[in-house]
Amino acid sequence: MERTLIADTIEKVGETVLVKGWVQTRRDHGKIVFLDVRDRWGIVQVVATDEIAGKINSEWVVEITGLVKKRPENLVNPNLATGTVEIEAKSIKVLAESETPPFPLDTEGLDIDEELRLKYRYLDLRRPRMKQNLLLRNKVVQKIRNYLLAKDFVEVETPILTKATPEGARDFLVPARLQPGNFYALPQSPQQYKQLLMVAGLERYFQIARCFRDEDPRADRAYGEFTQLDVEMSFPTQEEIRSLIENLYVEIVKEVFPDKRISKIPFPVLSYAEAIEKYGTDKPDLRADKKDKNELAFCWVIDFPLFEWKEQEKRWDAMHHPFTAPKADDIDFLYLGNPKEFGKLRADQYDFVLNGFEIGGGSIRITDPKLQSRIFEILGHSPKDIQTKFGHLLQAFKYGVPPHGGIAPGIDRFIMAALSEPTLREVIAFPTSASGRTAVMDAPSIVDKSQLDELGISIKSKRPS
Amino acid sequence: MERTLIADTIEKVGETVLVKGWVQTRRDHGKIVFLDVRDRWGIVQVVATDEIAGKINSEWVVEITGLVKKRPENLVNPNLATGTVEIEAKSIKVLAESETPPFPLDTEGLDIDEELRLKYRYLDLRRPRMKQNLLLRNKVVQKIRNYLLAKDFVEVETPILTKATPEGARDFLVPARLQPGNFYALPQSPQQYKQLLMVAGLERYFQIARCFRDEDPRADRAYGEFTQLDVEMSFPTQEEIRSLIENLYVEIVKEVFPDKRISKIPFPVLSYAEAIEKYGTDKPDLRADKKDKNELAFCWVIDFPLFEWKEQEKRWDAMHHPFTAPKADDIDFLYLGNPKEFGKLRADQYDFVLNGFEIGGGSIRITDPKLQSRIFEILGHSPKDIQTKFGHLLQAFKYGVPPHGGIAPGIDRFIMAALSEPTLREVIAFPTSASGRTAVMDAPSIVDKSQLDELGISIKSKRPS
Repeated sequence: MERTLIADTIEKVGETVLVKGWVQTRRDHGKIVFLDVRDRWGIVQVVATDEIAGKINSEWVVEITGLVKKRPENLVNPNLATGTVEIEAKSIKVLAESETPPFPLDTEGLDIDEELRLKYRYLDLRRPRMKQNLLLRNKVVQKIRNYLLAKDFVEVETPILTKATPEGARDFLVPARLQPGNFYALPQSPQQYKQLLMVAGLERYFQIARCFRDEDPRADRAYGEFTQLDVEMSFPTQEEIRSLIENLYVEIVKEVFPDKRISKIPFPVLSYAEAIEKYGTDKPDLRADKKDKNELAFCWVIDFPLFEWKEQEKRWDAMHHPFTAPKADDIDFLYLGNPKEFGKLRADQYDFVLNGFEIGGGSIRITDPKLQSRIFEILGHSPKDIQTKFGHLLQAFKYGVPPHGGIAPGIDRFIMAALSEPTLREVIAFPTSASGRTAVMDAPSIVDKSQLDELGISIKSKRPS
Repeated sequence: MERTLIADTIEKVGETVLVKGWVQTRRDHGKIVFLDVRDRWGIVQVVATDEIAGKINSEWVVEITGLVKKRPENLVNPNLATGTVEIEAKSIKVLAESETPPFPLDTEGLDIDEELRLKYRYLDLRRPRMKQNLLLRNKVVQKIRNYLLAKDFVEVETPILTKATPEGARDFLVPARLQPGNFYALPQSPQQYKQLLMVAGLERYFQIARCFRDEDPRADRAYGEFTQLDVEMSFPTQEEIRSLIENLYVEIVKEVFPDKRISKIPFPVLSYAEAIEKYGTDKPDLRADKKDKNELAFCWVIDFPLFEWKEQEKRWDAMHHPFTAPKADDIDFLYLGNPKEFGKLRADQYDFVLNGFEIGGGSIRITDPKLQSRIFEILGHSPKDIQTKFGHLLQAFKYGVPPHGGIAPGIDRFIMAALSEPTLREVIAFPTSASGRTAVMDAPSIVDKSQLDELGISIKSKRPS
């Protein structure tokens, strides 16, 4: 007999069906036992008189054959989508038993110790809220894909085993067995690869890309890895890129979060100076009511400074990243201006902000190798350093590089902000904890000495001070 | 003026357009210069009399405004989609110059030294064949997504920073800064996570998943990383999973490779014993004509042995992986049979084969913790080892695990086989070379001592013998 999904039982009155799923609750009424049985698509009440039904506990996996019957009017359960029917069990088979879960699964779960929730993440994900978050995330990502594919963007996978990149954060390193003493790095973003794809002539690229940063976690940043929508276009204006993304997010909200309301369309555009002056931050929360969970206040912040002064290191650093183009009017100043006044230079950069969170940043890129070298020089890289770290990019720019630019909105962070979840971990299936431990599996962990030998590395007996 | 894509110029006869792209070739005819200009969507002939046109070389990036004119009948170029028109240039702007590429870009490129092609991959990808491969790959992947999403499968991202898993290959390790002396591993596949998602009740999961194996490369295996379609279902039969995938690949071929012909639908199903006896291999090439590039001979190979004997290690090893269920009829033998005869046990496993390549493998999984422990024991794991490495999975199976199974077809390998490309690297944007060096960027590379200090590791002066 073919399985009927529980949500479909409502249309099968008078038919015998086979349902499979988890027992949510059991209620004993003498010889009659009521089981609420759940699968991914619904919950239905099963009425059983079989002796076995009395032994079944919550979260057991069962297979039940039974007759779908209409409930009498006065027994209809308005809280269940299948509340007008119930299944009269003819046979019940237990597929798997369950111990009592270490925490209740029918609550929001936010009051439960998070380490415990992560250890038993496979149970935590049975919560309606967590399941919903995974399903919504999937919908957002697929909406993004369909939108960009319809506009002829091509999704391209770029390498995870790659070279250290200078995007401001600490790299994760991977020792190379085939070249002992050498290391791959996990990408902080596919920044250079997407620029190389522009040199390749792909013109419109995107990727739902995994990014890695070995940075101490913050509320709006997960430890270790995160996911971003990585987009790059050739021959764009800043306005074209912003409009592409703005329309995408308007459509996402309309389709995936129909209960949410966007404060203002088109999204307000603020200059950095204006944002700082008016709101004291470059990621202002423009909601009329900061407590309104259904209000989504998107905005753009533009005209960022190109450089910021690092007092400790006594040098200029890139405010965004070193590939960001200065505004066309400001370029001459890089060669002729007083270095002390480089803080006045503006970048062709745009940040995407939602309810006080920076949910994405982008820029028009530098494509003139001479200008790119000048920027590296100002950031304090020696000529040798520039050659070692960026020689390949400067080389690529010698072979017909188109003007290009892009943006990289964070997926986790947008969904967290849109759902008003307290941390990114609520919208990630298996996040690492703040201390860097993986969910469910006990990593990082020690490895055999033979593995380290093969990699040509050893562990220092003490961590250096 | 808004940009016109070159493919659209054919519909703009009599209009002045702005096109942007790369100069493919320049032909000088005295005062008249012909430029073939290329963007991602097409190539068009531009007729120029401007002095600047004579200076432009191949692969320069230009912006041209001009009048689209119908060509006289006798000058129509039947080899160009835009061959009935040409653009009379009014103004030409050079956006970027180009040095002469290190190899020709208008050939197949297979005769050029591969290291050189990978070093200049951004140029290599300008070849029509390589661009086409990236576009086809994108189409295959999006077709897979649409097919599975329509059947209510949910795409879930699983971690890249995770724990070492025992899938038979060598793990890449990532030193953990927050726990010096400890390591993450990159996943050989999301095998355990997808099983945990079944425990979570997701029922239908998929992911276009990046997988990592530090194994010496082969023709049909790229070094380092590869991509697989990772699928898992709850409450399935082997036939359901095979049929799901079989229909998917029939549709992919129909939509993405309409010139290819599938030899037999439904795909032939051979037992392992039959395949070995008839063809001497468990991945037979069933094409009628092995040289026919348009014939796709898919088949299934089933009833694999559960174990294979490792003579060197004097122990049984899992033929697929240790989570593969034995055939129901064979389970008792695991407890009562003679260990010397364990080679007779059959697995509930199915391999997916195309033109002599194994393009995927799957199985029904073990969900009985007792049986799973027994398998680990037979494979030679000590009780302590089982607890350390698999305790989390055995624990998860105590909380209502549904019967489940899945499959993981390789993306790179399928596209390579379908396109009859000689290596996987022809269908990957930025592959690593056989020696483990990354394309374009010079990795793996040395890192600062301070970085190693932070990770609590050091490099051995000599590689141990």
